[in-house]
Amino acid sequence: MTRLTALRVLDIRAPTSRTLAGSDAVHADPDYSAAYVILETDAAAAGHGFTFTIGRGNDIVCAAVQALAPQVVGRDLDEITGDFAAFHRRLTNESQLRWLGPEKGVIHLATAAIVNAVWDLWAKQRGVPVWQLVAGLTPEEFVGLIDWRYLSDALTPQEASELLRAQAPTRAAREAELRRDGYPAYITSAGWLGYPEDKVRQLCRDALAAGWTRFKTKVGIDVASDVRRCAVMREEIGWECELMADANQVWDVPQAIEWLAHLAPFRLRWIEEPTSPDDVLGHAAIRRAVAPLRVASGEHCANKVLFKQLLQAGAIDYCQVDACRLGGLNEVLAVLLLAAKFGVPVCPHAGGLGLCEYVQHISVIDYLCVSASLDDRSTEFADHLHEHFVDPVRIRGGRYLLPEAPGYSAEMRPPSLAALVYPHGAEWRGA
Amino acid sequence: MTRLTALRVLDIRAPTSRTLAGSDAVHADPDYSAAYVILETDAAAAGHGFTFTIGRGNDIVCAAVQALAPQVVGRDLDEITGDFAAFHRRLTNESQLRWLGPEKGVIHLATAAIVNAVWDLWAKQRGVPVWQLVAGLTPEEFVGLIDWRYLSDALTPQEASELLRAQAPTRAAREAELRRDGYPAYITSAGWLGYPEDKVRQLCRDALAAGWTRFKTKVGIDVASDVRRCAVMREEIGWECELMADANQVWDVPQAIEWLAHLAPFRLRWIEEPTSPDDVLGHAAIRRAVAPLRVASGEHCANKVLFKQLLQAGAIDYCQVDACRLGGLNEVLAVLLLAAKFGVPVCPHAGGLGLCEYVQHISVIDYLCVSASLDDRSTEFADHLHEHFVDPVRIRGGRYLLPEAPGYSAEMRPPSLAALVYPHGAEWRGA
Repeated sequence: MTRLTALRVLDIRAPTSRTLAGSDAVHADPDYSAAYVILETDAAAAGHGFTFTIGRGNDIVCAAVQALAPQVVGRDLDEITGDFAAFHRRLTNESQLRWLGPEKGVIHLATAAIVNAVWDLWAKQRGVPVWQLVAGLTPEEFVGLIDWRYLSDALTPQEASELLRAQAPTRAAREAELRRDGYPAYITSAGWLGYPEDKVRQLCRDALAAGWTRFKTKVGIDVASDVRRCAVMREEIGWECELMADANQVWDVPQAIEWLAHLAPFRLRWIEEPTSPDDVLGHAAIRRAVAPLRVASGEHCANKVLFKQLLQAGAIDYCQVDACRLGGLNEVLAVLLLAAKFGVPVCPHAGGLGLCEYVQHISVIDYLCVSASLDDRSTEFADHLHEHFVDPVRIRGGRYLLPEAPGYSAEMRPPSLAALVYPHGAEWRGA
Repeated sequence: MTRLTALRVLDIRAPTSRTLAGSDAVHADPDYSAAYVILETDAAAAGHGFTFTIGRGNDIVCAAVQALAPQVVGRDLDEITGDFAAFHRRLTNESQLRWLGPEKGVIHLATAAIVNAVWDLWAKQRGVPVWQLVAGLTPEEFVGLIDWRYLSDALTPQEASELLRAQAPTRAAREAELRRDGYPAYITSAGWLGYPEDKVRQLCRDALAAGWTRFKTKVGIDVASDVRRCAVMREEIGWECELMADANQVWDVPQAIEWLAHLAPFRLRWIEEPTSPDDVLGHAAIRRAVAPLRVASGEHCANKVLFKQLLQAGAIDYCQVDACRLGGLNEVLAVLLLAAKFGVPVCPHAGGLGLCEYVQHISVIDYLCVSASLDDRSTEFADHLHEHFVDPVRIRGGRYLLPEAPGYSAEMRPPSLAALVYPHGAEWRGA
């Protein structure tokens, strides 16, 4: 028995807007932030989890976490994990709070922070990293983590169990492979829109020297500067490396189709978020029109019902699930299963503050348990703010090494929490 | 010049859960609430607006309003209304806050409260009700109220202008008709799930006696009790009156199709929210399967991009736009235009606290300026909490009478605000 005795929430913000790290066509000045949850227990372990935001409004997500806290505090960890789907439903379906979503925006971001803190606690208590905890579950236990409401027209729990059962016999070999080689990644740090050209060139050279072969740049301000930026990137990385581009929701559907014709010469692996993240049919229309250029989306996809439709409509070539936008790992697992059913590779969104720490687990779970494939898959990486984490990601030759420490890699270092807490931490005092 | 000098926000809650008014299959115990905004000015008038919620979490929306306040306070009303689309974009696209949506959930509900308060102020300053202010605009001015981003694959501003221009010559006759007859409505107050059968029967008889001919009931708990409830309603209202049913998102897609077969004998005018409000393709599949029963949705539709897709996919027979779920009246006007383009009648969602006061304006605008039709249209009415408003709705013979007082009918009486403010008002002290 491990009783959850208290939930603390901290408003953590890094002043990244001072350097324009993370700047793109719609996010001009992000301060990478976390609504940070600590689940205290009557045992030695505490669960740490957070949801990522980009500055103002992080306090609003913290308030939403507090509003959900009565669903958590006082409960027993075994009771929660014994019927994790019911616990998830209790959070997402709280009879008054669900009006604020349902299952989208602030209230769902808050749900993610809490649910991921429970995962961190559970894995620490078992003494294993989260990916290993999940990989050790039976197919029935895995399926039991998911609230299946609204999914049965696309995937049933029975189908999901069969899918998982089919991958189990070969899992040990895949785990050995990941221990040896790591999981493939791509790097976004070079191409932020706010960076001048010489900085982009230098960052590309540094990344090539470190073994990176997959790069992403930001586009969407104007055609001429996008063409210039892609040309600079190609000059630096050549034509053997992969190049992706991210428009961050900036275009209407017809505008996206017209604009992307100008980027055809750069042989992009994908165009990401070409229009509103809510526009399933718009993504499908763009995808049909710009082929063979492929379409990626998901970091702003509000919930599993939107992902279900993106897949049903044939709207995306790559599923960019986010560790915090959805209501925690349980809902992410549902999306991994849906993507596998529809044959769409999952390439998680990361970067920000701590998203890389989370998604390394997600990609490993996908490979070990769900898709069992690395084909055309890679996980985002951005080289910011890892120094704040107790168990930061380890990258070697453009690949994520397997996390080894118990938990969800979500715990931040106490001195970082003290310095970044808003507005009284040392990083913010006098700002 | 009218300068907006301050924005005050009040957490207003009515303890409706004590009577189970408003109870349905997913909202078991709502406390009808408002995140209530007062825009103070350097002139005599103040703008009042709010967003509706159902209790817990209303404080979170209030916090989001405060976060948006710097976009409003200090500005001039003429500057805002002179380019209202730009003002709307400034709120929905604030470079850090947009991460919390974008344009959905808490941050969008907060946007609605502010935007609707601006409308209230503008109309009061002009000395006319909001519907009349809008009806007096030129087609170009009307179109200029809307942020057209993400809509051009379904409707362009040019098409919208032409549509509005075509309706203008006959507008005066429709206005005279509404002044004489009012706008058709239906009543939801009888069929709350928490009410016992004898109360439902009595409420039906009262409503019939008051001239109502269109009724809605709640369904979705279990088939047998739904059949019983519909039978009771039909026994009371007969077969000449219209009967609608609202499932409040309770079913999976295949489950909805199977369940609704049992309700076929009751000749429902529509089934409302049969599944997740985000599931455009699911609504379309249900609609195809249950015809001739028709499908309604929209009260939880997060934004104009979702409505665009519901219409593009042929997913709904009725468009139930909400005055607060979307980011204020400007976005509602966009949805009225989209619905007209696709030939789908708009039957706004109302009830709650003050939603009837808002939507009477929306339906009038739709008839005068946009659809120019009353065919198969009616606006929701629930007989709760109107006593708290300075200018409450007036109903005669099951129809909304035209609002006459200047503003958006959103202003609550000062004694009501004092009594309902949470948690220190008289209604909550000691609760």
